[in-house]
Amino acid sequence: MLRIITCLAITLLFFQSSVATAQSKALVFQSDFGLKDGAVSAMKGVAYQVSSTLDIFDITHEIPAYNIWEASYRLHQTVTYWPSGTVFVSIVDPGVGSDRKSVVLKTKSGHYIVTPDNGTLTLIAESLGIEAVRAIDESRNRRKGSEQSYTFHGRDVYAYTGARLAAGIINFEGVGPLLPAKVEMIAYQKAAYNNGVISGNIPILDTQYGNVWTNIDKGTFDRLGAHAGDVLVITIQDNGKTIFSGTLPYVNTFSAVPVGENLGYLNSLLNFSLGVNQENFSEKYKVFSGPTWSITMKKK
Amino acid sequence: MLRIITCLAITLLFFQSSVATAQSKALVFQSDFGLKDGAVSAMKGVAYQVSSTLDIFDITHEIPAYNIWEASYRLHQTVTYWPSGTVFVSIVDPGVGSDRKSVVLKTKSGHYIVTPDNGTLTLIAESLGIEAVRAIDESRNRRKGSEQSYTFHGRDVYAYTGARLAAGIINFEGVGPLLPAKVEMIAYQKAAYNNGVISGNIPILDTQYGNVWTNIDKGTFDRLGAHAGDVLVITIQDNGKTIFSGTLPYVNTFSAVPVGENLGYLNSLLNFSLGVNQENFSEKYKVFSGPTWSITMKKK
Amino acid sequence: MLRIITCLAITLLFFQSSVATAQSKALVFQSDFGLKDGAVSAMKGVAYQVSSTLDIFDITHEIPAYNIWEASYRLHQTVTYWPSGTVFVSIVDPGVGSDRKSVVLKTKSGHYIVTPDNGTLTLIAESLGIEAVRAIDESRNRRKGSEQSYTFHGRDVYAYTGARLAAGIINFEGVGPLLPAKVEMIAYQKAAYNNGVISGNIPILDTQYGNVWTNIDKGTFDRLGAHAGDVLVITIQDNGKTIFSGTLPYVNTFSAVPVGENLGYLNSLLNFSLGVNQENFSEKYKVFSGPTWSITMKKK
Repeated sequence: MLRIITCLAITLLFFQSSVATAQSKALVFQSDFGLKDGAVSAMKGVAYQVSSTLDIFDITHEIPAYNIWEASYRLHQTVTYWPSGTVFVSIVDPGVGSDRKSVVLKTKSGHYIVTPDNGTLTLIAESLGIEAVRAIDESRNRRKGSEQSYTFHGRDVYAYTGARLAAGIINFEGVGPLLPAKVEMIAYQKAAYNNGVISGNIPILDTQYGNVWTNIDKGTFDRLGAHAGDVLVITIQDNGKTIFSGTLPYVNTFSAVPVGENLGYLNSLLNFSLGVNQENFSEKYKVFSGPTWSITMKKK
Repeated sequence: MLRIITCLAITLLFFQSSVATAQSKALVFQSDFGLKDGAVSAMKGVAYQVSSTLDIFDITHEIPAYNIWEASYRLHQTVTYWPSGTVFVSIVDPGVGSDRKSVVLKTKSGHYIVTPDNGTLTLIAESLGIEAVRAIDESRNRRKGSEQSYTFHGRDVYAYTGARLAAGIINFEGVGPLLPAKVEMIAYQKAAYNNGVISGNIPILDTQYGNVWTNIDKGTFDRLGAHAGDVLVITIQDNGKTIFSGTLPYVNTFSAVPVGENLGYLNSLLNFSLGVNQENFSEKYKVFSGPTWSITMKKK
Repeated sequence: MLRIITCLAITLLFFQSSVATAQSKALVFQSDFGLKDGAVSAMKGVAYQVSSTLDIFDITHEIPAYNIWEASYRLHQTVTYWPSGTVFVSIVDPGVGSDRKSVVLKTKSGHYIVTPDNGTLTLIAESLGIEAVRAIDESRNRRKGSEQSYTFHGRDVYAYTGARLAAGIINFEGVGPLLPAKVEMIAYQKAAYNNGVISGNIPILDTQYGNVWTNIDKGTFDRLGAHAGDVLVITIQDNGKTIFSGTLPYVNTFSAVPVGENLGYLNSLLNFSLGVNQENFSEKYKVFSGPTWSITMKKK
């Protein structure tokens, strides 16, 4: 009899443990807080207090201050490399304290993004699709003792809610009421092919190397019929003013051209991009990124 | 009989595992080492060799070189957001190799801070209280094979001791001999209310956004009787020289004033702070932080 | 009978769990990607998808772009502080897409380094010794769906392979075919003692503090017979041109000299180094690092 009880006790303990393990998921943070002060650590401490079984990671905390567009892009760049079910907390929030909504987006791929709904979800909503959007019910999902603080929703609401969701303490329904399946969208020029010419946007720079990344995906680019070695005619504009105009070869790898020469290639997201072998295209030609930047190109 | 042994073996294994899990706690690092070289990684490697069950995190490694005051502030800003029992290792150590003591502070809240006792503990000792202070006994708590190195106590003594304490390999008594319950303190102006005027210090900037944080807590601030929308008269001095003088509204949120206008608010620590909506107060008015900076204010 | 099955089931589950735990090891990343974009996070996401039981850490991602020499040094500086069996993924890869080989080095100390074989392994191969080198077989060790991407081997091949190796999904043999036991080596001046004079190289700066680190180890340095307080005569050259020439004391600790004075000491790797107490030697004397820098010294 004792053996039965012992075995049952073990079984129960084990299943409890298994369930806890099964529910625990990655919690991935992004912000414009930088790493010089204690803000990111305070958020992680709050998450760890919610559950010490979480696996806590980062995208980046070096989003330029208040740059919602770049926050949107960094999510677009990384979310799909994490498992379905991963919870992301993104905090670039110039409107903190205003009436912008605090939401959790569930994508059709099963990823969750906890964020102010201020445009941060633009690119991920387009690329992964909206499964559902819920408003965070702060009466349930807010750190105890934080009611008097007006300015650090990242720690008191977003990190706290994200940690509870990732740890399985609440499920998606537990976040709060269902909202219409849409999010705030930032306008920008979509990639398009028309009569031998491709148009697109420069959403972001490859910061570390100064490469220029466009939103022209492989499918659109392939309509040009360009092969490795073909020369492309490129024009880049900011708000309609031409910043760069020239020709460069389409190649598979940087080392296909001599050091210091321009090139076009498909980047790691399989989007058309521009670089200089072992130099910085962006600095060299003063080409930057954002919704106001556009590019057109055709085969020579 | 075999079943009994099997069950007992499972039970023992399980309890061993449970005990190990129960003892493992977060180990949180802070330093002025930066992230460009391998110093932080070497510390974490040493900690991971002590126990691979530790959950290892960071406050920041971007403390300005030798800035003990800022190290003290970052601990003050973050420690309470981590669970009681968390072990912090803080290494800003301009006196490495001198006779400054290596200690572990246990706060009244049950947090442990492993650090040189050089002023780093000033603010945390005041805010959380000193439960006890122990000297690190290097004859027991020093990485094997490190006896010939004079200059990286962070790795060989502090990370090693912090990891052993967090993993439960030693308890607090195992750190070393009990010292008097006091630590080295850096002098600065305390927050005070007197006859309608509040005085205080500027311990730190909100680096990423350029907001100016004071040590004037909500309790002291409330004695002014200011409500959201009230205008405050502010003077900021460095070593007695006036750097900023002006009026600004007390508000609950940055978006309560137009972009580019000054404001006062309670920050995420519920301390009075100054900012410019979507601009940088510190750069705009050349207001910085440290023990020599003071602020006075009253209602207009 | 049910009890037997239950117990066996528990036993099996438990052993599965134990085996998984036993196989899981630290996976440590290094790159020149910086932390401003999503590249590092995408690599970690890929690793976490391979196995959520991995313990994922970093050396640094702030290696100067394309600086293979510094990548080599950072490995040399940190690898031995991590347990034998730890898997490192180092990606500084100016030749991505060229015919440089993708390899895993197993050191004689049992550490694994996953990297392009472009000189990154120079110092670690010398200091820890080569147990074996294997080429990564991309037909087996490449992230599914990544075949069309030419430019992010770090994510699709190196992070993926490193994670599988660290998690025990493949063993070292599973990486790919055995290569000759040698790696690409960058030439530089070795530390040497000759007739009372020591020669050496300046492999790296202590970036955060501006100290200058040489490759002159304690064994070589001891041949001078210098004791704490003895004065050394130092000459530093870059490509044969003298940059610094002067005398300074050999000390055990920075605080042995007044603030602002030069000193020589053994750093945390027990290599001879130069500093200024609470100042920046490198900036003050314009002394930098790399294969072209050399130093000579003797007792005064």
